[in-house]
Amino acid sequence: MRRFVVVGHKAASAPGFSLKDLAGTGGRLDILARCVGAAMLVSHGLRPDVELVTMHLGPPSPPKAVRFDSSRLQHANPDERSSALLLEKALGTGTTGPVWQPSTPGVSVAAIGLEELLDGLREPLVLLDESGEDVAGAALPASATYVLGDHLGFTPEEEAMLRARAAARVSLGPVSLQADQCITVLHNHLDRR
Amino acid sequence: MRRFVVVGHKAASAPGFSLKDLAGTGGRLDILARCVGAAMLVSHGLRPDVELVTMHLGPPSPPKAVRFDSSRLQHANPDERSSALLLEKALGTGTTGPVWQPSTPGVSVAAIGLEELLDGLREPLVLLDESGEDVAGAALPASATYVLGDHLGFTPEEEAMLRARAAARVSLGPVSLQADQCITVLHNHLDRR
Repeated sequence: MRRFVVVGHKAASAPGFSLKDLAGTGGRLDILARCVGAAMLVSHGLRPDVELVTMHLGPPSPPKAVRFDSSRLQHANPDERSSALLLEKALGTGTTGPVWQPSTPGVSVAAIGLEELLDGLREPLVLLDESGEDVAGAALPASATYVLGDHLGFTPEEEAMLRARAAARVSLGPVSLQADQCITVLHNHLDRR
Repeated sequence: MRRFVVVGHKAASAPGFSLKDLAGTGGRLDILARCVGAAMLVSHGLRPDVELVTMHLGPPSPPKAVRFDSSRLQHANPDERSSALLLEKALGTGTTGPVWQPSTPGVSVAAIGLEELLDGLREPLVLLDESGEDVAGAALPASATYVLGDHLGFTPEEEAMLRARAAARVSLGPVSLQADQCITVLHNHLDRR
């Protein structure tokens, strides 16, 4: 299974943002919404056995983690607005604890931060890092959790914590890409194995 | 220079669609909007020397071609809605002839179809085709025009016309992707050369 974790440092942690201005009012929630499409969808359907967790560390009630499971996902459309609506619904469940609460089918939400999320995962962690080994030649586990930053990258504390946990660090190529583009490129390199 | 041409068979050819429902009211205009971000943008900026032409073959006044030039583009944001607004403005210029009319900076529009567009291009044409040679090993020209279908692929007539003109046909891997994902993957393979 492929799991992607994307850290939205300013991303809204409750509804109240405008769907007309996800970037501004949602704290770059547009990035996380695009990651849903990139992680879950291919031409005319869903990928099998993929998980995406979007981390919402912005106001008003951080942290929140929203989990998408492609094997059970419904109501997923490729457009960004539809993905933002799924995020809005999940963030609107009012969950305050660390147990995953179901939202729409295939989507759940918990009030946990990055470290607590990673503590609960078994698969080896692979860090997307421009100074890492090139993905095309890297020996990667069949099942892994890939962790990506948003437009702000990672904080020094996150970076240290992630490096200490990472089984591997991989680079996707010579050009620095947006988070959703990273997921698309990573899927392609993994599809080729 | 890299040029991408994406054929929107049902895509709106004039304003009047809803930004809340680009897929339905815009004839899958969401696909073309996502291609703008995929073709033009990387992390924190624009790619140099890339062109994207979105073909709008749906009602009410087809054909229209909208051209994005990354070296002059302004007002480009990564979110899908912003790209749709640039498309809406370009389609609203009221152009009826085959000469490119400027819209916002770096965006222009002409009332031409796919064949007329390709007639005016010098670079060799590369067709994205799942039965083509794998992109990772393919000998590709440094400058080329890459032609992609939308969710409907190509019509038999387009397919015959494109195959007759194509200098190469390349496949991006074992999984069939959405048009914007194809552009992202193609960029990555070209970036690695």
